[in-house]
Amino acid sequence: LASKLPNVGTTIFTVMSKLATETGAINLSQGFPGFDCAPELVSLVEHYMRKGFNQYAPMTGVPVLREALAQKTFEQYGVAYDPDTEVTVTSGATEAIFAAVTAVVRPGDEVLVIEPAYDSYVPAIELNGGIPVYVTLTPPDYSIDWQAVREKITDKTRLILVNTPHNPTGHVWTTDDLNKLAELIYDRNIWIVSDEVYEHILFDGRTHHSLMTHPVLQERTFVVGSFGKTYHITGWKIGYCLAPKSLSVEFRKIHQYLTFSTVTPIQYALADYLKQPEPYQQLSAFYQRKRDLFLDGLRSSRFTIKPAEGSFFQTVSYAAITNEPDYDLAIRLTNEIGVAAIPVSVFYHQKNDYKILRFCFAKEDAVLQEAADRLSKL
Amino acid sequence: LASKLPNVGTTIFTVMSKLATETGAINLSQGFPGFDCAPELVSLVEHYMRKGFNQYAPMTGVPVLREALAQKTFEQYGVAYDPDTEVTVTSGATEAIFAAVTAVVRPGDEVLVIEPAYDSYVPAIELNGGIPVYVTLTPPDYSIDWQAVREKITDKTRLILVNTPHNPTGHVWTTDDLNKLAELIYDRNIWIVSDEVYEHILFDGRTHHSLMTHPVLQERTFVVGSFGKTYHITGWKIGYCLAPKSLSVEFRKIHQYLTFSTVTPIQYALADYLKQPEPYQQLSAFYQRKRDLFLDGLRSSRFTIKPAEGSFFQTVSYAAITNEPDYDLAIRLTNEIGVAAIPVSVFYHQKNDYKILRFCFAKEDAVLQEAADRLSKL
Ligand SMILES: CSCCC(=O)C(=O)O
Ligand SMILES: CSCCC(=O)C(=O)O
Repeated sequence: LASKLPNVGTTIFTVMSKLATETGAINLSQGFPGFDCAPELVSLVEHYMRKGFNQYAPMTGVPVLREALAQKTFEQYGVAYDPDTEVTVTSGATEAIFAAVTAVVRPGDEVLVIEPAYDSYVPAIELNGGIPVYVTLTPPDYSIDWQAVREKITDKTRLILVNTPHNPTGHVWTTDDLNKLAELIYDRNIWIVSDEVYEHILFDGRTHHSLMTHPVLQERTFVVGSFGKTYHITGWKIGYCLAPKSLSVEFRKIHQYLTFSTVTPIQYALADYLKQPEPYQQLSAFYQRKRDLFLDGLRSSRFTIKPAEGSFFQTVSYAAITNEPDYDLAIRLTNEIGVAAIPVSVFYHQKNDYKILRFCFAKEDAVLQEAADRLSKL
Repeated sequence: LASKLPNVGTTIFTVMSKLATETGAINLSQGFPGFDCAPELVSLVEHYMRKGFNQYAPMTGVPVLREALAQKTFEQYGVAYDPDTEVTVTSGATEAIFAAVTAVVRPGDEVLVIEPAYDSYVPAIELNGGIPVYVTLTPPDYSIDWQAVREKITDKTRLILVNTPHNPTGHVWTTDDLNKLAELIYDRNIWIVSDEVYEHILFDGRTHHSLMTHPVLQERTFVVGSFGKTYHITGWKIGYCLAPKSLSVEFRKIHQYLTFSTVTPIQYALADYLKQPEPYQQLSAFYQRKRDLFLDGLRSSRFTIKPAEGSFFQTVSYAAITNEPDYDLAIRLTNEIGVAAIPVSVFYHQKNDYKILRFCFAKEDAVLQEAADRLSKL
């Protein structure tokens, strides 16, 4: 069987998590919380399983969850999505991204990818026959080069993938970024998939500027969200897509045949839990403490660091320490000092030598401290 | 946004289930159990949630579940799949089918579809640029016309979709069918996706002949299974794919970007529960009783009926009763006598007038009796 994705090997998340497990290293590579979700949330799932909510949910998601999502979105961003026709529950944000890309991209279409980019974007484009066109962000500030974006847009550009707060860099879009993007596309047939799974994790007083808050962008954007990162349940795999009706119609046609529907008792539990705003309102403060703890621990290290603006990832430059390629260093750090990280070059389409590692700080305080101690010896 | 699936409207399952709910009709349309799963299974999920198994599972599935699946498969069919490289856990059988089709089909490839066919097959083919080529089964016996299959195979045929026990007809493949298929493809580059989600529901002493039991077929088949139909948990959305390593490698590349992984605590629970063989060993007897109860109740009706060989669906011909198109009749039965069914013509690519309805008999006895009573008045 000839491969349709010949360049895809084992994902870096699997490689690093496996190596961390085998070596007993602290795993700051793959992005998942090192602590548990709220016990109330587990109790709610139990409640609905015990009540017998164990058969197919509606294809679009259970109505109460779609309504709760529409309500929360309206309160938070002032944008009203119709729960019946504009909100769809998915099997994680990964499925939502794949479905949205599939709904839009046809063979020969160009898709702007702002790199470093999450590893599922490009395969989703390529499996649909699309051509990724890259706009490259560079350390240390990773801000969007709007001149470069303008130059990359052609008559064949059909989609732009946006991710804010950004994985892996922690960079966060400003209203100026939204305006710039709107200016470039308002008179073109270009759609947007906006991956906003870290919408509740912003630091130093920053605000999340969802693409839905700009009317020109809202009209053409599939906003993708997730409960995994917000409620510490990455293993429950529930995400969603918010999009205007005409886009949601096409999104749902794809979702229907990708997975049809998503775990019923968890959907009901999340519908109830969403009505408690504290958990997500406190998330930025919760993670800022962890980021600062980790950065404090690295003060005496020789890494060069610009604090993350959002997400639960911190990138660091090791240029002052060693000349090794980042992949080699990531492997060596895991084996020798017992801390696993992600080499950021894997998020670019071409080899590069920016010398950046990504650490996930969604871990217990003691774990972060120990990791920082070990890293400071480098 | 121009549609990539212009012919897809609301799925018949959504249409009929919604109408049944609105009218208070007995819902024998969409295929899901009208009773709950085993409480032990719920307890196991609770156990693993409480123990904190709430973050990402490995992309391929948790090792204990892959091992339990390999073990069960070996005991049942005598075929040894390597749990590390040949077993992959998915977000339901729907995802497994989409991933397998995507792994194989490229633009211009022909794919044999044996119709009536489950509604996700053709969109999966078309989204990958494939061309569905139909082999049509007809009532009342729905056996495979191997001469027709032979004639439809060309140099462009790349994949054949098989489904046994068959939804919607309940038809079951024999070893002769396996041999015929093997003869036709043994010297060609043709792969197979075999949807075997009803593998544990066979009637009147029949055996399930998995495609994996024929060595020529095993080598080129993605066998798709599901826990939803076997354990009465259609809403938990856990399926899997068994395939030789070279096929599984490509399957996993797609799965990784469709959903990445599947609900962790449920995977652990199923790994434990799979070690109790009774639930699935008794499933055929359990459903045969229900099928017979339903058929008994229809004895005085004017439907023409050939008992289903497997699955939890019974098709009936209403040619002796009315001339209406099956879709119209399905709507009318729901509204007027309070029983919702699926019109089987929707599973064909072209309009037809075979006058067949499909009833799901995975319901409580009293519900089946009442439905049969109502239907007998027709
Ligand atoms: C789906 S595994 C990857 C998790 C994640 O978002 C990351 O580490 O970037
Ligand atoms: C995914 S909803 C359809 C359920 C089913 O398998 C059927 O009714 O045929």
